[in-house]
Amino acid sequence: MDVSISDISTLSLPEGAEITVKGWVRTRRDSKSGVSFINLSDGSCFNSLQIVIPKEIFNYQSEILKITTGCSIVVNGCIVKSKGREQNFELRAEEVNVVGWVKDPDTYPMSSKRHSIEYLREHAHLRPRTNIIGSVTRVRNCIAQAIHRYFSEQGFMWVSTPIITASDCEGAGEMFRVSTLDLNNIPHDSNGNVDFKEDFFGKETFLTVSGQLNTETYACALSKVYTFGPTFRAENSNTSRHLAEFWMVEPEVAFSDLEQSAQLAESLLKYICKAVLLERKDDMNFFVQHVDSSAISRLENLIDMDFITVDYTQAVDILVDSGRKFDFPVYWGVDLSSEHERYLTEEHFNAPVIVINYPKEIKAFYMKVNDDGKTVAAMDVLAPGIGEIIGGSQREHRIDVLDERIIEMGMNPDDYGWYRELRTYGTVPHAGFGLGLERMVAYVTGVSNVRDVIPFPRTPRNASF
Amino acid sequence: MDVSISDISTLSLPEGAEITVKGWVRTRRDSKSGVSFINLSDGSCFNSLQIVIPKEIFNYQSEILKITTGCSIVVNGCIVKSKGREQNFELRAEEVNVVGWVKDPDTYPMSSKRHSIEYLREHAHLRPRTNIIGSVTRVRNCIAQAIHRYFSEQGFMWVSTPIITASDCEGAGEMFRVSTLDLNNIPHDSNGNVDFKEDFFGKETFLTVSGQLNTETYACALSKVYTFGPTFRAENSNTSRHLAEFWMVEPEVAFSDLEQSAQLAESLLKYICKAVLLERKDDMNFFVQHVDSSAISRLENLIDMDFITVDYTQAVDILVDSGRKFDFPVYWGVDLSSEHERYLTEEHFNAPVIVINYPKEIKAFYMKVNDDGKTVAAMDVLAPGIGEIIGGSQREHRIDVLDERIIEMGMNPDDYGWYRELRTYGTVPHAGFGLGLERMVAYVTGVSNVRDVIPFPRTPRNASF
Repeated sequence: MDVSISDISTLSLPEGAEITVKGWVRTRRDSKSGVSFINLSDGSCFNSLQIVIPKEIFNYQSEILKITTGCSIVVNGCIVKSKGREQNFELRAEEVNVVGWVKDPDTYPMSSKRHSIEYLREHAHLRPRTNIIGSVTRVRNCIAQAIHRYFSEQGFMWVSTPIITASDCEGAGEMFRVSTLDLNNIPHDSNGNVDFKEDFFGKETFLTVSGQLNTETYACALSKVYTFGPTFRAENSNTSRHLAEFWMVEPEVAFSDLEQSAQLAESLLKYICKAVLLERKDDMNFFVQHVDSSAISRLENLIDMDFITVDYTQAVDILVDSGRKFDFPVYWGVDLSSEHERYLTEEHFNAPVIVINYPKEIKAFYMKVNDDGKTVAAMDVLAPGIGEIIGGSQREHRIDVLDERIIEMGMNPDDYGWYRELRTYGTVPHAGFGLGLERMVAYVTGVSNVRDVIPFPRTPRNASF
Repeated sequence: MDVSISDISTLSLPEGAEITVKGWVRTRRDSKSGVSFINLSDGSCFNSLQIVIPKEIFNYQSEILKITTGCSIVVNGCIVKSKGREQNFELRAEEVNVVGWVKDPDTYPMSSKRHSIEYLREHAHLRPRTNIIGSVTRVRNCIAQAIHRYFSEQGFMWVSTPIITASDCEGAGEMFRVSTLDLNNIPHDSNGNVDFKEDFFGKETFLTVSGQLNTETYACALSKVYTFGPTFRAENSNTSRHLAEFWMVEPEVAFSDLEQSAQLAESLLKYICKAVLLERKDDMNFFVQHVDSSAISRLENLIDMDFITVDYTQAVDILVDSGRKFDFPVYWGVDLSSEHERYLTEEHFNAPVIVINYPKEIKAFYMKVNDDGKTVAAMDVLAPGIGEIIGGSQREHRIDVLDERIIEMGMNPDDYGWYRELRTYGTVPHAGFGLGLERMVAYVTGVSNVRDVIPFPRTPRNASF
């Protein structure tokens, strides 16, 4: 029977069961009595499987003793109970076929010694063979599946919003241009400007920074929708929290206000954390032992604690009254920076915090203006250990107020024709938020740099692989 | 109690239950006896809910009688059994609040009359309010969720492959350039060439045409993986089957051959069709009535029938022997065109067909060369009613043969360094395929143009919304 290593425990295979497993060798050691032990990994779970190979096997001398880390093998054998090891069983090999050798084993980049996370990044095509990146991949998958499952269970429809766009959602983002123009022969119009009429889409196009404006159109028809796909920022930010290409989930709900959106955010985050603790105990134990000792307890706390909602104005008061000297000064009207957010969530409240009602000057044009005329119905969800993890808002659904805001921000209402029509044809209060997948995976695993939680990171001057 | 329209049947709410529903008005009609009937849709399912509004309601004259198609309303009322209608229940309104009016109802683009599918495309921000696009959206969601669920149940890990890439998977695709270079001031190197060192990533970058090469790296560590994301073609194809931006699911399995990949493809397609028939009976009935009378029977057939595997060489013989006059001539070595594929699947076999072992000259460099030296282990899955829906292959895992193929195709092995290393470090036979989401949704629904099964289609000269 062909099985994966994770099957062996989930299927509760009995001792003596004949199985075939396939995978890559982590380590080999040979006992003096003429038995070899191989740790085999197939990526299906954190644990590798110990293979016990008696010297009687026909290719013991010719092949088994030459097996090195990274070789691929197929093993037939019987399950036996093992004593005194972490795992309860091992495989007594009856036949071992070497499928792929490792060329020049001494220089194999993923040798069994411990490598730095920066070194692994340089070998992104081989790093999933390591414990840490294997675990990150399984947890990332678990989180993504949990997100789809959560929204599905709640009656949301996944909609795919366009990646290539002619509009700039935020009104200010730094964007990548998408083009098929020949750079050696740029067409110009009669005024000497680049003639994008000649480009593939007949106009200037970019990579999306958010699917929100598009999800609003579907929310205003299907009530509960979400988009989950890649988004882009052409920012020259070389930090542990920024990627030029990252995945974002953005729910949008009709007939919904900021408070309900905050509840949805809390519920989603708790659902994700529960799924990880339930389904990826193996990988989370690894993170606790080798990356961040609080990886599990942090998630347990997030699940147990009620999120605290605090007004931006009140948050500023707390920060001013703290007596703490921050690098960036705090006053009403300032955008909270990371140090402020972390003080609030990690020190003052020691709980997840949802800051709401920000000054309208520091937020986007589409956010609903509150009755005070000064603030908008925006929220940021802050979690201990990472800071801001979700940003969202109730959207301005009143056409007159929306138009005022567009003009106030120096933009042209005519550029937002279809978006404005959602407000003239059966407008409804609606709200949503964005959760960055990589920040969530980093938060959950304790891995500190988002470049290590996405398979092939794109950052300034790096699009390798 | 706040409920969606789909909740009313799934929760089996009893007669007399007090509920609140929210949505958009489809139609209103007024009886002579002073009762108004509104069909309300909230997108949660195909059916709208009939709201019965007695004239005694306080805003009957001032508001109810002014409600038009597209208005958003919130209704409180009691569930009552309805007689002689398609649905079993209706809502007797006690309170109706108009949330959003429709400006200038006579010109509302989504009036209750029937619109052409081309007209709807021009109003992509409002078309999800129609029956057909609402149904497409729910079926598309159902298919996407089924895909994630299927792979999850089978032990696959979702990996996100990069959208921005410096490599060209197919070796020949027409690609979109991604850049932040100032088109009015293109930098040049000392040889007069465009200096991509000055670009964001320090080299020339494009939008991906496939995540396959990247998934192979993860399959060679985690055994079973899949990518599911947007892919791009800068082809000037204005057909009903082509989009510049479309979603593709690409599984990749280590220790797997072409036959197993064909089985996986068959199993996935059947799983998707079963999920749609089970979960979206309401929408499928609509497609049968208004789009394609065989929409359901086609899926039932696909589920019931064993897929037929046929060698390319044999397929060519069948086509030659058919006596049929094709627009494109058939001979060994030709790439099968749509008319050939449809003859095979719709006329000759009248079943889904998997054509395998194509001439190597017409296939990509990474496909495994068969023992005959002339063909490669490629497959195309053809389904009656649409033709090719899946393309895949076993990958060449032998470094010497891969290198020969790369050189044979006029490419440089040095450009494939990391890809080649998968063959020198524990190489394994592996295989996978690609399924285009939009073609699948078109196939399932019977909607004939892929522009109508993705929310905001991107095609030559069109990146609206």
